[in-house]
Amino acid sequence: MLEKNKQIGRQSVKLENPVYIKSSGTVVGKMEGEGPLAEYFDMVCDTDKFGEETWEASESRMQKEAATLALGKAGCTPADMRYVFAGDLLGQNIATSFGLMDFEIPLFGLYGACSTLGEGLSLASMCLGGGYANQVLVVTSSHFASAEKQFRFPVEYANQRPLSATWTVTGSGAYVLSTQKTAVRISGFTTGRIIDYGVRDAQNMGAAMAPAAMDLIKNHLRDFNRKPGDYDRIVTGDLGSVGKEILCKLLSDEGIDITSVHEDCGMKIFDSKSQGTQSGGSGCGCAAVTLGAWYLPKLISGEYKRILFLPTGALLSQVSFNEGENVPGIAHGIVLEHVECQEETA
Amino acid sequence: MLEKNKQIGRQSVKLENPVYIKSSGTVVGKMEGEGPLAEYFDMVCDTDKFGEETWEASESRMQKEAATLALGKAGCTPADMRYVFAGDLLGQNIATSFGLMDFEIPLFGLYGACSTLGEGLSLASMCLGGGYANQVLVVTSSHFASAEKQFRFPVEYANQRPLSATWTVTGSGAYVLSTQKTAVRISGFTTGRIIDYGVRDAQNMGAAMAPAAMDLIKNHLRDFNRKPGDYDRIVTGDLGSVGKEILCKLLSDEGIDITSVHEDCGMKIFDSKSQGTQSGGSGCGCAAVTLGAWYLPKLISGEYKRILFLPTGALLSQVSFNEGENVPGIAHGIVLEHVECQEETA
Repeated sequence: MLEKNKQIGRQSVKLENPVYIKSSGTVVGKMEGEGPLAEYFDMVCDTDKFGEETWEASESRMQKEAATLALGKAGCTPADMRYVFAGDLLGQNIATSFGLMDFEIPLFGLYGACSTLGEGLSLASMCLGGGYANQVLVVTSSHFASAEKQFRFPVEYANQRPLSATWTVTGSGAYVLSTQKTAVRISGFTTGRIIDYGVRDAQNMGAAMAPAAMDLIKNHLRDFNRKPGDYDRIVTGDLGSVGKEILCKLLSDEGIDITSVHEDCGMKIFDSKSQGTQSGGSGCGCAAVTLGAWYLPKLISGEYKRILFLPTGALLSQVSFNEGENVPGIAHGIVLEHVECQEETA
Repeated sequence: MLEKNKQIGRQSVKLENPVYIKSSGTVVGKMEGEGPLAEYFDMVCDTDKFGEETWEASESRMQKEAATLALGKAGCTPADMRYVFAGDLLGQNIATSFGLMDFEIPLFGLYGACSTLGEGLSLASMCLGGGYANQVLVVTSSHFASAEKQFRFPVEYANQRPLSATWTVTGSGAYVLSTQKTAVRISGFTTGRIIDYGVRDAQNMGAAMAPAAMDLIKNHLRDFNRKPGDYDRIVTGDLGSVGKEILCKLLSDEGIDITSVHEDCGMKIFDSKSQGTQSGGSGCGCAAVTLGAWYLPKLISGEYKRILFLPTGALLSQVSFNEGENVPGIAHGIVLEHVECQEETA
């Protein structure tokens, strides 16, 4: 028998059957390997090509390497994973399909724009907490060159970038989740709605996503009856400095002050001044590799007891943008908690 | 407390906590409204435009109408739905994002190519069976004109179509799933892996998907320890006549004969000879509207006691295809069963 997982408020779940993060794998490109988090990634590739011929195949290769690393660190083979929850930014999720095919793991393909890791961790938690699996894999990725080609201009055009632009992270993060106890537990999640504030600038994703992050944080705190100070960090995925300012302002209008605990993966992964990445990093890979490289170790050590981790996504395609549609946003929030080991509690 | 859902074999789940289909909504275009199932759809639009300016907006409008119909028939409002599981074929799921935004339901965006309804029903079943929700919505769609533009050539080019080509269905199907008893139960599911047999012809999706359907059916029967005769029908999504022949041959090589119970939604929805749809219908919408229009009523009435329903997807994008990648396939299988009412058992 299973404990009944608690539906909290309109959008949240408190996981009564524990779900744990067993391992992570983080793979990044050259630029990320020259940034502030350089030493914390599992693998850095100097060329961004990862030995492949096309940008799309390079992104697939990153997913394969990240998944292999996560499996290896967990001491698992692909056959130990009952499901893989995965997605990316490219049309028809091709980075995922061609990256994960060889593992032969039953696949749930996801699309949540840059919020995909949050979506994947939520669904994987549902799956484990509902007794449908004992171990699953969650993978996501983005690649600067394949994303520019998909959404804006091929990098070979050398177009100029405004200050509000974010820099798509070349990176893939993979996570093995398990019902078996580890030092980091997923204790709940809040699922986002699509929020449209009428932003139409494909070079200002931060502004498009900030309202969705605001909505998610506001509803999360209400559903769980918590305040920002109940978290060591509230971590957004890829708002960048432009989006961060909008988020803090929007929340302030709601009477919520997160400034003392808020961090953004897009601002953590690059040194915008020296690296010329404007507003900061973005893409599914941004939150995915920053969680594994920076936040997960701090949760394992107990430096952070509890964080709210919310990757943020901008819902657009080249087609919808060219047809004059807005760029709505979505965010998916996960509560990650440090778990005391027996040695510590004894 | 919840019953523990049973993990069966490598890829399947037997749902111990019942999940039911409460209602469906089916919306189709002109061609589908002239086909053999014409009288069974909830809504037919004569122009395929559904009052919108672009093909993509037309597809979004279909999702909105289908969801509204399903909600209405269930006597529900959007606020009664805890989650929506939805996806489509277009890059970055834009038909879904712009179609479902106004409902303000927490969204899990999916990508499973034309298998998306199977993926959505599986995840929604996990969600309900795990106690994470009491009612959820599952939606998917495809549109002939937006899909041709996305994957092959804009329809205005009037390119010729080979006999192996399928015709993307203009349609959207929406389903309200509930823990509350109805006449149709989802009793289990089998989740597909990516299967690549080396097909490289974007005009022969049936051949690309048949191996995935074979793999799914074989593993499903093994996991559940059943034979084809245990089902009134085994229904594939959109293999068409070309794919159906390949599927039956591949299964025959494995010693499995499904010929007496196999049907394909792509062959049901059009009269290929008189409608010129070559191999048959395809697209997320094909299985989605055929389930609601044709199979669900027969399950409700008890004419069918149990069917295996497996939408099939071809994993490709214009980019992956142009870069010379194969077209792998995936399938997701759902077991649907008639539930006796009290009146009948009394």
